[in-house]
Amino acid sequence: MDLRCVVAIVRPELLKTLEGRLAIAHVHGLTVTRVKGFGVHPNPFSNDCTTEHIKIEVFVQSERVDALVQEIVDAARGTSGDDGIVAVLPVERFFRVRTASEAAP
Amino acid sequence: MDLRCVVAIVRPELLKTLEGRLAIAHVHGLTVTRVKGFGVHPNPFSNDCTTEHIKIEVFVQSERVDALVQEIVDAARGTSGDDGIVAVLPVERFFRVRTASEAAP
Amino acid sequence: MDLRCVVAIVRPELLKTLEGRLAIAHVHGLTVTRVKGFGVHPNPFSNDCTTEHIKIEVFVQSERVDALVQEIVDAARGTSGDDGIVAVLPVERFFRVRTASEAAP
Repeated sequence: MDLRCVVAIVRPELLKTLEGRLAIAHVHGLTVTRVKGFGVHPNPFSNDCTTEHIKIEVFVQSERVDALVQEIVDAARGTSGDDGIVAVLPVERFFRVRTASEAAP
Repeated sequence: MDLRCVVAIVRPELLKTLEGRLAIAHVHGLTVTRVKGFGVHPNPFSNDCTTEHIKIEVFVQSERVDALVQEIVDAARGTSGDDGIVAVLPVERFFRVRTASEAAP
Repeated sequence: MDLRCVVAIVRPELLKTLEGRLAIAHVHGLTVTRVKGFGVHPNPFSNDCTTEHIKIEVFVQSERVDALVQEIVDAARGTSGDDGIVAVLPVERFFRVRTASEAAP
């Protein structure tokens, strides 16, 4: 099985929309982390140049990566100054505790 | 040196047990992040479908991955509805600040 | 484009210094996560053996990895007991929401 981790760093207000869209896209698992950061433009009004963001991580099979990236980019465009990035990382193996064996994400 | 990052997303109550088991397994370094998320079954009682989890990351040499995954899965089974996943990501290089050079995790 | 994710786990007091150094090194994006963890020496004064750290993630083109790792290690040396690690992970693809297409980090 060919696996990837799709990582999106977007504004927190996108979470609800993204969860809805990803549920429709049959995403069976999603991790959200509160992070802060900056992209091309550091935030001059923040003490440390950063802005609150969320990091969303989804483990998926490689053939679903394109659709998932598209969903995230579409959801993020037009909101919050089009702030955000999506990266795709290789994953070697994936296990579910429930089955105690390798599994499809 | 062939390196990996073992990422586990499990319930917070597992932290103590996991730290004990990983110490016995000679894990020399572990990072814990508070995250929230859902797996196959979104949480219908939560405002945003997610449940509190912790993400544990351990950098290890590849020959120790199997034993480490097994420790984590064993620790997580039988607790919290067998909730959780473990993923293994490739790592290219690893440095310790102390030695200012590449090192074994 | 050949991409990497440089991940540093260092003490929180390094954040300001690192942001300054990375800005000079033309880093166009940085994510900070509050984490806790331990390295070679678990913290015996902490309830769960861990110490507060921050995790910094930067997506970069591969030819800039060496300089970036050096900046981080240099910034971290001599502070906080030389605590910290830097790891380099492969990245397959990278998108900016603003352009809705693959982009250089």
